[in-house]
Amino acid sequence: MSKIAAGACMSLDGFIAGPEESGFEHLFAWLGNGDVEVPTAQPERTLRTSAASAEVLREHTASVGALVVGRRLFDLTKGWGGTHPWGVPVFVVTHSVPEDWANDGNPFTFVTDGVASAVEQAAEVAGVDKMVGVNGGEMARQCLELGLLDEVGIDLVPVLLGDGVPMFGKLAGAPVRLANPTVVEGDGVTHLRYRVLR
Amino acid sequence: MSKIAAGACMSLDGFIAGPEESGFEHLFAWLGNGDVEVPTAQPERTLRTSAASAEVLREHTASVGALVVGRRLFDLTKGWGGTHPWGVPVFVVTHSVPEDWANDGNPFTFVTDGVASAVEQAAEVAGVDKMVGVNGGEMARQCLELGLLDEVGIDLVPVLLGDGVPMFGKLAGAPVRLANPTVVEGDGVTHLRYRVLR
Repeated sequence: MSKIAAGACMSLDGFIAGPEESGFEHLFAWLGNGDVEVPTAQPERTLRTSAASAEVLREHTASVGALVVGRRLFDLTKGWGGTHPWGVPVFVVTHSVPEDWANDGNPFTFVTDGVASAVEQAAEVAGVDKMVGVNGGEMARQCLELGLLDEVGIDLVPVLLGDGVPMFGKLAGAPVRLANPTVVEGDGVTHLRYRVLR
Repeated sequence: MSKIAAGACMSLDGFIAGPEESGFEHLFAWLGNGDVEVPTAQPERTLRTSAASAEVLREHTASVGALVVGRRLFDLTKGWGGTHPWGVPVFVVTHSVPEDWANDGNPFTFVTDGVASAVEQAAEVAGVDKMVGVNGGEMARQCLELGLLDEVGIDLVPVLLGDGVPMFGKLAGAPVRLANPTVVEGDGVTHLRYRVLR
């Protein structure tokens, strides 16, 4: 089966969003603070990062075959305007399917029977050669608790947000041990990639 | 004045202790998982770490001239048995001075008029050439809020504790921006050192 990896930009105090959806100008600053261009699947959106971060992003996008996200992020980004920046199929875990979303031929699938089902469907689409990316917060926590996560990728940002949405939250089954990370030093971000030990 | 630096061993989800003072066997595992000996001021206690971590510890202990800790940590460690491992004077921030603690000639000073006073007293003892170390949690948070911190040193441990005592907690005045860290990769720990941006 595909490798399942959760990932997010996280503040040093463990938040993927500040209070009331604030702090993104800090968490995502590294995606625009360099001079190496990284194109996305959105023609109007090109990232500009340090060379080290560009390499991390290129490797990451080349290895991800499908994504699992929560409804909160989908709504917050307005479904990324119809195309996720990584250009891969997205499985949205939700209690109810939005009625006003055009479903024909677009890469979003709404999954109402839980995150494990979404991961399974995403893995089928991704195939064995590519991994499934799970977004941080509630989705990452649930996958960890279900023993579904193989890796955790943290883009650690040098800022303290003080409060907000935690990357992991109150985790049943903690402590969860991780292996030593691979470390890449960017500008305004430290890329840490951990294997989950079972 | 001395440089003021907060530091702690922290889980990837931001805790310096798990629920009900648990998790220390994970947070401090790196202090005993290597074969390079690092003596402490306690004759019976020698740390054994990776070469990279030993170098970080040696540099750190050589640069610290005094410590500011909270009463909780002092009680938890029973005053480190009378001698802190770094062998430097310790200023304990407390509401009331313990009556059963022998004060003659020992390196602990109890400070009842707040953390700023403790930092000031510690800085006087440390002198300009050495820094003041502030322990994580409540003390670090208060120092950050008072604008007293110059640096934050995090020994980031690859474990998720799920809950417990946060390194920073709910921070007034957030977001607080930090500079890019220096990074040293140990075994079972990633040493990150950040300058606080004002």
